[in-house]
Amino acid sequence: MSGLPPGSELETATDRTPPSTVVIFGASGDLTQRKLAPALHSLACAGRLSPETSILGIGRSDITNDAFRARLFEGVQAYARLKPDPRLCNLWSQFETRFSYIRMPNLDTAGFAGLTERLRSERSVDGQGNVLFYLAVPPAAASAILRSLGHAGLAKSDRGFRRIVFEKPFGSDLSSARELNQAAHAVFDETQIFRIDHYLGKETVQNILALRFANAIFEPLWNRDYVDHVQITVAESIGVEHRAAYYDRAGVLRDIVQNHLLQLLTLVAMEPPGSASAKALRDEKAKVLDAVRSIDGKDFVLGQYAGYRDQPNVAAGSSTPTYAAVRLLIDNWRWRDVPFYLRSGKRLAEKKTEIRLQFKDVPHRLFSEERGPAPNRLSLQIQPDEGVHLRFEAKVPGSGMETHPVDMVYHYEDDFGATGLPDAYERLLLDALTGDPSLFIRSDEIELAWGLIDPLLRASLSPSPYSVGSWGPEDAGRLFDAPGRVWLND
Amino acid sequence: MSGLPPGSELETATDRTPPSTVVIFGASGDLTQRKLAPALHSLACAGRLSPETSILGIGRSDITNDAFRARLFEGVQAYARLKPDPRLCNLWSQFETRFSYIRMPNLDTAGFAGLTERLRSERSVDGQGNVLFYLAVPPAAASAILRSLGHAGLAKSDRGFRRIVFEKPFGSDLSSARELNQAAHAVFDETQIFRIDHYLGKETVQNILALRFANAIFEPLWNRDYVDHVQITVAESIGVEHRAAYYDRAGVLRDIVQNHLLQLLTLVAMEPPGSASAKALRDEKAKVLDAVRSIDGKDFVLGQYAGYRDQPNVAAGSSTPTYAAVRLLIDNWRWRDVPFYLRSGKRLAEKKTEIRLQFKDVPHRLFSEERGPAPNRLSLQIQPDEGVHLRFEAKVPGSGMETHPVDMVYHYEDDFGATGLPDAYERLLLDALTGDPSLFIRSDEIELAWGLIDPLLRASLSPSPYSVGSWGPEDAGRLFDAPGRVWLND
Repeated sequence: MSGLPPGSELETATDRTPPSTVVIFGASGDLTQRKLAPALHSLACAGRLSPETSILGIGRSDITNDAFRARLFEGVQAYARLKPDPRLCNLWSQFETRFSYIRMPNLDTAGFAGLTERLRSERSVDGQGNVLFYLAVPPAAASAILRSLGHAGLAKSDRGFRRIVFEKPFGSDLSSARELNQAAHAVFDETQIFRIDHYLGKETVQNILALRFANAIFEPLWNRDYVDHVQITVAESIGVEHRAAYYDRAGVLRDIVQNHLLQLLTLVAMEPPGSASAKALRDEKAKVLDAVRSIDGKDFVLGQYAGYRDQPNVAAGSSTPTYAAVRLLIDNWRWRDVPFYLRSGKRLAEKKTEIRLQFKDVPHRLFSEERGPAPNRLSLQIQPDEGVHLRFEAKVPGSGMETHPVDMVYHYEDDFGATGLPDAYERLLLDALTGDPSLFIRSDEIELAWGLIDPLLRASLSPSPYSVGSWGPEDAGRLFDAPGRVWLND
Repeated sequence: MSGLPPGSELETATDRTPPSTVVIFGASGDLTQRKLAPALHSLACAGRLSPETSILGIGRSDITNDAFRARLFEGVQAYARLKPDPRLCNLWSQFETRFSYIRMPNLDTAGFAGLTERLRSERSVDGQGNVLFYLAVPPAAASAILRSLGHAGLAKSDRGFRRIVFEKPFGSDLSSARELNQAAHAVFDETQIFRIDHYLGKETVQNILALRFANAIFEPLWNRDYVDHVQITVAESIGVEHRAAYYDRAGVLRDIVQNHLLQLLTLVAMEPPGSASAKALRDEKAKVLDAVRSIDGKDFVLGQYAGYRDQPNVAAGSSTPTYAAVRLLIDNWRWRDVPFYLRSGKRLAEKKTEIRLQFKDVPHRLFSEERGPAPNRLSLQIQPDEGVHLRFEAKVPGSGMETHPVDMVYHYEDDFGATGLPDAYERLLLDALTGDPSLFIRSDEIELAWGLIDPLLRASLSPSPYSVGSWGPEDAGRLFDAPGRVWLND
């Protein structure tokens, strides 16, 4: 990317990863094939991955190195942003040799002894002993791996870094998340721990920070004086599909609300940090979660799409919610009395993730007395159609002074091209390997977020049914309590 | 337009003009052919002109009605927004009979007696006696016509309205404008007087008001706390062409600065009026002009394009400026110390009229320390490319947190179509005939504007030469006195 020779003093930490070994637990699973290998390949093509990178995949399946590599190649071809290409990125035949597979059927002492031995030999290759452990496993398996890493002495090193990445969900409720934090802290320092919410790796999510804090014109409006309310939507059009076994235990609250939705909330609502350091950013995000008022029963609605219970691997009579809508209030100076409406669901009318700020109406109407208010809206389109929309009133040509809402539009693709937006995992792997924890969730954030969702998890509430292709259960509208506030679906 | 039958009680004043007679002085000139007749035709096609409208053209040329109509037909075919068309607007054969020509070689008593007689007969046609006098003549001829209208008793009527439209420029300096105002007020009330600045008839100019006062999000930023400076540009790529005889006496100060540029300034800088009434709007506009600090010699630059003096009908050694740039300060609570840079010129690099607000930089930089500030800008594109651009910083994909300026864009054409924007003269004729003076200049505004420009007219300054196709003389840059302020040409 930088065009500088490797090792140049001008190369900064974010330019290229240091030589290191990535140890993936759960490597025979979907995540490695569909996300991690494609992201590593794209990073390599972009010149951001050190050529001295080894990837050790650990799994239960009994497969050979060759079968493992063939499987990853399929994933890279199908999902990588930068795909193998004879002209543009012709490195797979060399790159695939960086991947090895180690079968470890039952995470036992012998297995970790073998891993230790292997890392020792890898260390002689990269010369540094940098190791990133990546837990692509369910929360339940995480504790056992943590203990074994501790016993094997793999969590600390006097040469190079030792870091560990946790996939979301981190825990399955407040108490399990606390236990997992304790288990992790027994072995690793918090500075070594990287908890993933892959939404934070999305360019459009990071752009929330750029929009707010690299521009002078938005922040003056970004408060209770001008914002009527905020809506954050993570809508999926697909159903549970092949993830039913996991999903029926998790539900939308653990799958989306506790992590993606609350993380988006923190970025929208946070105070401007004093610096862009990981500490300053995460301090401000945690402050938002800490200021959210406890969620009352009247402030949320759960739903389940028609036909969900008939899916394979869904329990008979399951009451797992596939839709949730929550009304939040943030008790601080900036946001007091400004409702934040968060919602997510499967099998909704369309796939989109967006944040909309609806501004208050003008204080005094000069024009168009006969028409109802059409307040300004700023829409941050996270996906698809990545961009920013600003709705404002423009004069209708030929009229006296009638106005009509129109959209000022920006699309990332216009400036940065269709393949310009790196996948979230590229960014997160890069940051984990270079040691920047800004876009990972700190232990206090995790626990604050679970603390907010816990009452919803414990509510003995049957989810309201909703039709496939709708915008969720009808009673989700009851969260709105003021004129001019409705779910913004258009 | 409204679809309502003529005379319906629900028809408002702006829907359709009342039956009336339009008397055009200077009817054999360019304006009537290129602007007035095409505008009247488009209004008729749009159903906004009463079928009971007569147009009497008065001029010195010795031409027949038929020749007059043929000449107008050429203009309508070439310049009208809605052109004669067998399918869309097939009314010319009937419409042309509304036009008559009266030769009046030397505005004498006999001529006005004939006009009076003619209006009496027209009155019996329209049944109301509404008359709009339109002075498409140089300022020098206006006084004589005013006196004659007064003597003939044509300025007042006990039935219907009598109004008079003045083309710009209204006077040629402060004292002549005062004299013309006195002459006009000796015959007409101010409420009968409609002083045209056709820029105010442009949809995109009126949209400045809609943008500011029909939206809640711009006004909080529209002041000295957030705006660094404002640039207003009226750039022409053509030279003086066939207008040299007029232009060499007027120059850019009388042709553009005193009227178009200062009018744009008032709309950008005015306080929100209490209502959209003509009085409230014009009160606020006049307050802006009254608050502009007197223009000092160091605050303006005049220029003349290379080759101007060689044009036909330009005086040898002419020192008429074809370019002017002015730095203004507005001494009020909102704008104190925020410079407004106004400029206009002929034979510049491109044709465009635009208003740009450059906002201050962020108070504290979190990102991109290494790059210079790229402050937010709101650009109102008056013509061509009618629309709104908002420059903001977006994250560069794949980077740490590097940002890059991008444009959020709105084009009127996207919502309202290519022929959706009525010509300024359509709007102004409609308003004059329906009696809405909002978009016309009041006597106090005219005199305040001349008062500001008078010192520039009297300056014994040779204009600086500039190259054809440039952005004006190089010393225009000296008006900027702070880092980050330059002429915005891109």
